[in-house]
Amino acid sequence: VSQNLPTITIIGAGLGGAALAIYLGRRGFPVEVYDLRTDLRHGTFIGPSMNLGLSRRGLMALERLGLAEGALDRAIPMRGRVVHQQDGETSFQPYGGRPEHVINAIQRRDINIALVAAADALDNVRFRFGRRCLEVDKAARTAVFRDEQTGRSENVGYDVLIGADGVFSAVRAWMQRGERADYLQEFLDWGWKELRIPAGPGGSFPFERNAFHLWPRGHSLLFAHPNLDGSFTCSFVLPFEGEPGFSSLTTNDSVLRFFSREFPDLVSLIPDLTEQFCRNPVVNLVTTRTSMWHYGGSIALLGDAAHAVVPFYAQGMNAALEDCAVLDDCIERHPGDWQGAFSEYQSLRRRHTDALAELSKRNFLELSDRVRSPFLRARRFLDIGLSRLLDDRWTTLHSRVTNTCIPYADAVEMARRQDRLLAWTGGSLALLATYGLVWLLRRS
Amino acid sequence: VSQNLPTITIIGAGLGGAALAIYLGRRGFPVEVYDLRTDLRHGTFIGPSMNLGLSRRGLMALERLGLAEGALDRAIPMRGRVVHQQDGETSFQPYGGRPEHVINAIQRRDINIALVAAADALDNVRFRFGRRCLEVDKAARTAVFRDEQTGRSENVGYDVLIGADGVFSAVRAWMQRGERADYLQEFLDWGWKELRIPAGPGGSFPFERNAFHLWPRGHSLLFAHPNLDGSFTCSFVLPFEGEPGFSSLTTNDSVLRFFSREFPDLVSLIPDLTEQFCRNPVVNLVTTRTSMWHYGGSIALLGDAAHAVVPFYAQGMNAALEDCAVLDDCIERHPGDWQGAFSEYQSLRRRHTDALAELSKRNFLELSDRVRSPFLRARRFLDIGLSRLLDDRWTTLHSRVTNTCIPYADAVEMARRQDRLLAWTGGSLALLATYGLVWLLRRS
Repeated sequence: VSQNLPTITIIGAGLGGAALAIYLGRRGFPVEVYDLRTDLRHGTFIGPSMNLGLSRRGLMALERLGLAEGALDRAIPMRGRVVHQQDGETSFQPYGGRPEHVINAIQRRDINIALVAAADALDNVRFRFGRRCLEVDKAARTAVFRDEQTGRSENVGYDVLIGADGVFSAVRAWMQRGERADYLQEFLDWGWKELRIPAGPGGSFPFERNAFHLWPRGHSLLFAHPNLDGSFTCSFVLPFEGEPGFSSLTTNDSVLRFFSREFPDLVSLIPDLTEQFCRNPVVNLVTTRTSMWHYGGSIALLGDAAHAVVPFYAQGMNAALEDCAVLDDCIERHPGDWQGAFSEYQSLRRRHTDALAELSKRNFLELSDRVRSPFLRARRFLDIGLSRLLDDRWTTLHSRVTNTCIPYADAVEMARRQDRLLAWTGGSLALLATYGLVWLLRRS
Repeated sequence: VSQNLPTITIIGAGLGGAALAIYLGRRGFPVEVYDLRTDLRHGTFIGPSMNLGLSRRGLMALERLGLAEGALDRAIPMRGRVVHQQDGETSFQPYGGRPEHVINAIQRRDINIALVAAADALDNVRFRFGRRCLEVDKAARTAVFRDEQTGRSENVGYDVLIGADGVFSAVRAWMQRGERADYLQEFLDWGWKELRIPAGPGGSFPFERNAFHLWPRGHSLLFAHPNLDGSFTCSFVLPFEGEPGFSSLTTNDSVLRFFSREFPDLVSLIPDLTEQFCRNPVVNLVTTRTSMWHYGGSIALLGDAAHAVVPFYAQGMNAALEDCAVLDDCIERHPGDWQGAFSEYQSLRRRHTDALAELSKRNFLELSDRVRSPFLRARRFLDIGLSRLLDDRWTTLHSRVTNTCIPYADAVEMARRQDRLLAWTGGSLALLATYGLVWLLRRS
């Protein structure tokens, strides 16, 4: 480790923070990672979390660290969606035309532990768990941390501070204080609750293992990821208020009645449904956006701290890991010039993560309702047919987001162009057909 | 004062907080008003502030307190805009078709002192100046205030807490902590700086006294309100970055050169222009919006704390005073039911203050640039002609916002309908003319 390199202080040992610690540790920087939780390798509960979907972008960022294979060992590839109708009928929608077009179901805990362990294995990376960031003085370049065990606070100077501390980032709040920073936080009127389908007899899977399972009901939504032990982790998504709504599902009776009506196939598979329902909290769904990702060449934000999205495109983790790879590139291109590196990082990323925020909100509608539409299912088969025929020149938006590293906003633009082309072609064919018909009628 | 009425604790003795103290004091509630500044009746500097424009809505709210006449005594009615072109040419655009269609220029200090004095004259209203709200515990219904002189903190219980503490409201932040509250803050890339044109010889006015003066330059904007002493208070509005921009006007030379080119008529009228320019800070322009104005029948927000707007429609103060009148009505309609009163207050107000936020942003474009367009000037004269002809059935949007108490969103909707009618009429007339022409051509 060179004596001349500044120390990088990272707040947050989640996926983004731990991954960046590896990236920058490998560049030789001394790295200190603070996290308010205790070390999750020692069994810390890290809160409810949808099983995560690791796709191309996240894998690419892990590959650069040599960690992709290890992650895939702990993951289950999902080849598409199985849609479960109310009457028990199921249909399969593949994620793409090729075998590598999969989303990998992985537990947040597993991948987080792998990243923390890989970072901790580097000599120049040090973790300081159980320390909450209370305050950042951006002018003095100091931060106050409270030891959550002793209650004692400590004032620590920093050279470069990275806020990887999640959607309600303390670093962001302190950095933006008094600054001209646009900020939006926007909640869905829906929340979600984790439920668990236990493994079948002898660790068997109660459903098709290599798929994402979806129960779209319009006014509610349930989806499930497979786990290695044969169980499935479900996310049950419902409005807070109204009928149905979490506010009206308050008794065992009402919960059972609701599930028997909407998800009859699940009731027998989750014997302790009502207990789980009572025990597990309802979690908010929030999108945030901000115009100020960095400050004075000394602070930058990463992942949810810069751009939280709702989880319906399964891209939150992938975007955070991609942030690390892009930031690492920018630091390489601007040696010693942190202001330049952070500026380029924000200008490369922000427009794409803003696009992802929109995509993720839109996909909520698709998953909860539109996925059932026969028109959309026909379109999906048309797209897959065209993509097999035209190879990579024709790809769905979902596939570009999931199976490629094309920046999000560019993927959206390509999809827009494809839709226009399809509309033109369709329109032209319809016109031709009409002319043909008129010509035929005249001849007869 | 009845022993059974809860105490109302108001944070912020600005325009909204002081006016609400009078409204609720007159209803018999014990009222305590905390403000972090010292009493501005003793000469406290209250920061740069555009001279305010008091129009119908604000006047209506003051009339209900018997304070409108007193306010008008300290105000100068402005009958319209005088637009100053770069070559010195001026043109006048009236605010409406009637003598009472004016905006009253008034100093923030004057109206704030009048409101505080009127509140303080009530036996059951008490002011506690120099106390900063550090923390609100909404579950325990307590707030921590720090005495800014002694530095000592005090924990105070409250029954009902009103956050009238401005755009970066501490009450809002504490109330929304952990809640599902949407929040947007959005800055313009422009800032503004106060400048002062001194009175002419013997307290005479250097310009037409009863008008709002405007120097629209597209890439910059300056406007001025008359003061009672013959001086004018100017707001100079400019982008932060770029050319021209505040970041490039850093030397006396560059300031003088810029003003000589863009506002040659002002250079001789402000002898200490460069001193003023160096001394006065650049102030941000921010819009905020939030979905959560109240909590648990014990906290509500008012004025900028709930909805800050950019000042280009001169409606910030008027909207805050209108908030007080609406909240007072709601409290009257729901005696003892604060949850009900606050819910109705938000549902009556929010959509209109959201509409005002959009109007205020749009009017920035009009003032800085479009006001010069010959088309818009023609349209303004057409509107004024139609409004004279059709009386109140035809009114401009600006006039509905300024000269009436029609809720903002309704005023916008009426303007939209009027525009459609005009487009239809114009379109029909054009069609008729074309048919007429064709008919004539055929005959000849």
